[in-house]
Amino acid sequence: MERSFKTVALIGKYKNPGIAEPLLRLAGFLTDMGVIVVVDNLTAEHLKVHPYRVLPLEKMGGVVDLAIVMGGDGTMLNIARVLGPFRIPMVGVNKGRLGFLTDLSIDSMQQSLAAMLNGDYVTEKRMLLATAVMRNREIVFKSLALNEVVVHRSNVSSMIEFDIRINGEYVYTQRADGLIVSTPTGSTAYSLSAGGPIVHPSLDVITLVPVCPHTLSNRPIVVSDQSVIEILVHRTEDVRVRFDSHTFFDLHVDDTLTVIRYPEPVSLLHPVGHSYYYTLREKLLWNKPL
Amino acid sequence: MERSFKTVALIGKYKNPGIAEPLLRLAGFLTDMGVIVVVDNLTAEHLKVHPYRVLPLEKMGGVVDLAIVMGGDGTMLNIARVLGPFRIPMVGVNKGRLGFLTDLSIDSMQQSLAAMLNGDYVTEKRMLLATAVMRNREIVFKSLALNEVVVHRSNVSSMIEFDIRINGEYVYTQRADGLIVSTPTGSTAYSLSAGGPIVHPSLDVITLVPVCPHTLSNRPIVVSDQSVIEILVHRTEDVRVRFDSHTFFDLHVDDTLTVIRYPEPVSLLHPVGHSYYYTLREKLLWNKPL
Amino acid sequence: MERSFKTVALIGKYKNPGIAEPLLRLAGFLTDMGVIVVVDNLTAEHLKVHPYRVLPLEKMGGVVDLAIVMGGDGTMLNIARVLGPFRIPMVGVNKGRLGFLTDLSIDSMQQSLAAMLNGDYVTEKRMLLATAVMRNREIVFKSLALNEVVVHRSNVSSMIEFDIRINGEYVYTQRADGLIVSTPTGSTAYSLSAGGPIVHPSLDVITLVPVCPHTLSNRPIVVSDQSVIEILVHRTEDVRVRFDSHTFFDLHVDDTLTVIRYPEPVSLLHPVGHSYYYTLREKLLWNKPL
Amino acid sequence: MERSFKTVALIGKYKNPGIAEPLLRLAGFLTDMGVIVVVDNLTAEHLKVHPYRVLPLEKMGGVVDLAIVMGGDGTMLNIARVLGPFRIPMVGVNKGRLGFLTDLSIDSMQQSLAAMLNGDYVTEKRMLLATAVMRNREIVFKSLALNEVVVHRSNVSSMIEFDIRINGEYVYTQRADGLIVSTPTGSTAYSLSAGGPIVHPSLDVITLVPVCPHTLSNRPIVVSDQSVIEILVHRTEDVRVRFDSHTFFDLHVDDTLTVIRYPEPVSLLHPVGHSYYYTLREKLLWNKPL
Repeated sequence: MERSFKTVALIGKYKNPGIAEPLLRLAGFLTDMGVIVVVDNLTAEHLKVHPYRVLPLEKMGGVVDLAIVMGGDGTMLNIARVLGPFRIPMVGVNKGRLGFLTDLSIDSMQQSLAAMLNGDYVTEKRMLLATAVMRNREIVFKSLALNEVVVHRSNVSSMIEFDIRINGEYVYTQRADGLIVSTPTGSTAYSLSAGGPIVHPSLDVITLVPVCPHTLSNRPIVVSDQSVIEILVHRTEDVRVRFDSHTFFDLHVDDTLTVIRYPEPVSLLHPVGHSYYYTLREKLLWNKPL
Repeated sequence: MERSFKTVALIGKYKNPGIAEPLLRLAGFLTDMGVIVVVDNLTAEHLKVHPYRVLPLEKMGGVVDLAIVMGGDGTMLNIARVLGPFRIPMVGVNKGRLGFLTDLSIDSMQQSLAAMLNGDYVTEKRMLLATAVMRNREIVFKSLALNEVVVHRSNVSSMIEFDIRINGEYVYTQRADGLIVSTPTGSTAYSLSAGGPIVHPSLDVITLVPVCPHTLSNRPIVVSDQSVIEILVHRTEDVRVRFDSHTFFDLHVDDTLTVIRYPEPVSLLHPVGHSYYYTLREKLLWNKPL
Repeated sequence: MERSFKTVALIGKYKNPGIAEPLLRLAGFLTDMGVIVVVDNLTAEHLKVHPYRVLPLEKMGGVVDLAIVMGGDGTMLNIARVLGPFRIPMVGVNKGRLGFLTDLSIDSMQQSLAAMLNGDYVTEKRMLLATAVMRNREIVFKSLALNEVVVHRSNVSSMIEFDIRINGEYVYTQRADGLIVSTPTGSTAYSLSAGGPIVHPSLDVITLVPVCPHTLSNRPIVVSDQSVIEILVHRTEDVRVRFDSHTFFDLHVDDTLTVIRYPEPVSLLHPVGHSYYYTLREKLLWNKPL
Repeated sequence: MERSFKTVALIGKYKNPGIAEPLLRLAGFLTDMGVIVVVDNLTAEHLKVHPYRVLPLEKMGGVVDLAIVMGGDGTMLNIARVLGPFRIPMVGVNKGRLGFLTDLSIDSMQQSLAAMLNGDYVTEKRMLLATAVMRNREIVFKSLALNEVVVHRSNVSSMIEFDIRINGEYVYTQRADGLIVSTPTGSTAYSLSAGGPIVHPSLDVITLVPVCPHTLSNRPIVVSDQSVIEILVHRTEDVRVRFDSHTFFDLHVDDTLTVIRYPEPVSLLHPVGHSYYYTLREKLLWNKPL
């Protein structure tokens, strides 16, 4: 499972000048280890004078062997959607609390990364969702998501109504606040707040979770990652689709969303001994019973 | 429990020309029974030539003894917020399916209303909520609600953060899609979709239901109708408060909502034999087990 | 709100020899304050030689002015069911973690109780439920409950089926693991695990919560404390009713349970400044968001 | 996908004499089609005089090519646990309402089966769970389950406490009424009542659903079908494990259950055009919104 990381991108949470100090500290450490450091252009804005090559994220494919992302899970999501298609593996360093995606801490990152650069790491593949918005038989918007695609009522509406089809078969019509199409990664994010199950990140499944459904017997459904999921929005004029709580696009009546698994997964690298269940217990406070 | 109804308002669902025929039929029936019929101005737009007095809802106080509302529960909510403060009792006639608030059917309305005009009815008091939005120590918006007051994220935001205080005491801080403050009447509406309990309409209680709360142990709370509920919205810039899924108002950061029970209840009249539990079973499909 | 406490019962968690030391320490402190101490006979078994009067719980009515219960919420429940009918107010001292009913800590109990004996306390009334099991028109079992009455499948059965009637009116038929009839006090206990709402302890309401109902649209219902709740168990032969997770009784097919509010409430005394919402936050970990 | 069915077992719901008439009718029809009919010995008790070979279920392996089960989903579960290991495909005929496993109706069974015997059918593989109870390092009980394995408090206890380990890794400790380990098939049965997600039957996953967990943030988890799930029961003396709500076994303190996927799946045959989502909509009343 060894892999040689010669050129490494350092990417910090945007609009966060406080990231400069630890990021430069890490850059120096990596340089000392003989690694070539690249910084993305938005992060570089906070760094003032520095000796590192600057590249926009979109140009890093084929150049860097690894991306180290410093921030929270939200930062990791945003970077993964861009870097994922270029097959660049990623490591997350959280600035504060342990994250589901950012499991290294700033305090011990040098020790952890030294081991990982020496080949001591485990690789985890995470599924991305690819969404296309169809309007009058044309694609008018496309986006990837690592956590979830959410179709949600927007400003004025009090609910939306939609049909679900899977692999061309009609599944149900639902009135609700919205619908979450979640990856296993997203199962511990918004989906969980809406009543969805926790799904182990190794599974090749997609979960559909209605948000505040009017039909009280409607429940989350787990389906195959090979599903072609179509969501047809009707009746309601004010609907929006969101990707990882970040990007969004306003839908028209009779727009259809098609959501499928993106063929290329994201690779997350973890230190040896990384435990998904440990993170679950820590984040969900399972060790502190009522 | 007898009461004399000499002047009766007929109010139909707005923007619904189909309401004209049954409404005129009912008006003729009431006239034949010696009742003076008044029609509100928006309903009158659909009626063409007719001999009835026309009044806006706001002028009906002191004039009409009873309001008959023809439409669905949504129409009833909208009329109740206006007529409630004038102490005009109301009867609901549903055009299609049985409603929680509109329990007479068009098919049998003449028979039902004949009995009710003869004094055979039961009166049910329903609580209204009164909300004031405070900004820089001034009230910038006020509204009533019969179902619920909802503080909800709006267009761009992916969640909101708010503090709850009750009778001046801090209760909790929560990140969520929103918060529902519901009357017993509203407990079978949006609150139910969000996981709130069903609350018998006779109870003097208010229910707080978080929508998709980030804290998984946050649950609906039922509190006294004498509570002064304050909701302080912070951090998030794009928040809206909605009343009965109808009226809304955009909030600023640091706005405080104060929600209390409105002193005057709405009076709903029902035929003798009306059963809340029957309506529950019919609407929630409790007679059709899995 | 002052009240003179001249004779005080000390009651410890049963079968717990470790209670002896703090209980004797408290007894000495109270004696020094001029209070007459009485110990119940089961607690006395752990105390060895001591100078205090010993009485069974059932004989304390008319003798003691106050009962101090040392243990957890479970101990408090068991004592309250016995002492409640005698109108003896109670104070709870928890041995470890803060309880909903036992809000004094052993570490600071002397200071807290000194203030309370001087009249600085608040009184809270808590509702008890009274249940009778009817078989062939005769009462075959009766019990009180401070938290909840639970009708539950027992050893062999995989579910039970029952009818609910309230004030003589049919409400619903349900197949489920069981049904919880909960007081506001019980709303943070088993009822909460089964999906019931939190109900402020000041409210005069009773909550019905189905446990794993087969009808997915069945939800908790909050009804008036004046309700006569009848549960008719049918078809299933192996059903049990439990009171506060402590006492139980095996039901036969066609047994009917009648649950009403017991006329006399339990009085809990708290130090001035006691906060229900603080306890909620501490117990439900609301201050530790995901 | 064609397959030749020369010898077919007919199996009826036990202790149900009413099954005799349609079963004999079907046996005659099959004989007319040139199929050799075998009847299991318990079903045969209801048939009086008949010309068919009688075999116990356990002897049907290698003899019959197909089993037609007449009854409800419960009957199908019981037969599948026995026949599953012998690789005998099964078809379910429901006597009344559509089942998840019994999707042919008695009224149209001859037409449906004629087509299926001609090779027009689809095959669906359903996972079985295999459970072993370990006591002092020895297996003291084993069973299969098609729906779920449930560890549940039994007669006297009010809750149980258990540890979960997956693939040797500690996952969590939980106090609860019980724990459900469910196949996708079981996801629409007891698991759904306890708040578990619906899982498409084609997926290779297992779902763990706590029943009334004390830790409010505990949620259903979906894990790989390759998981070795260990449940260690501690502290509580009165615990039982149930299989498909049918077979059960009483556990001792410190017993460990090991649950894995059984290597051989059950094969269910359906008519061409069979739709899982149609069955979901029909059974969960999704076409009848609030």
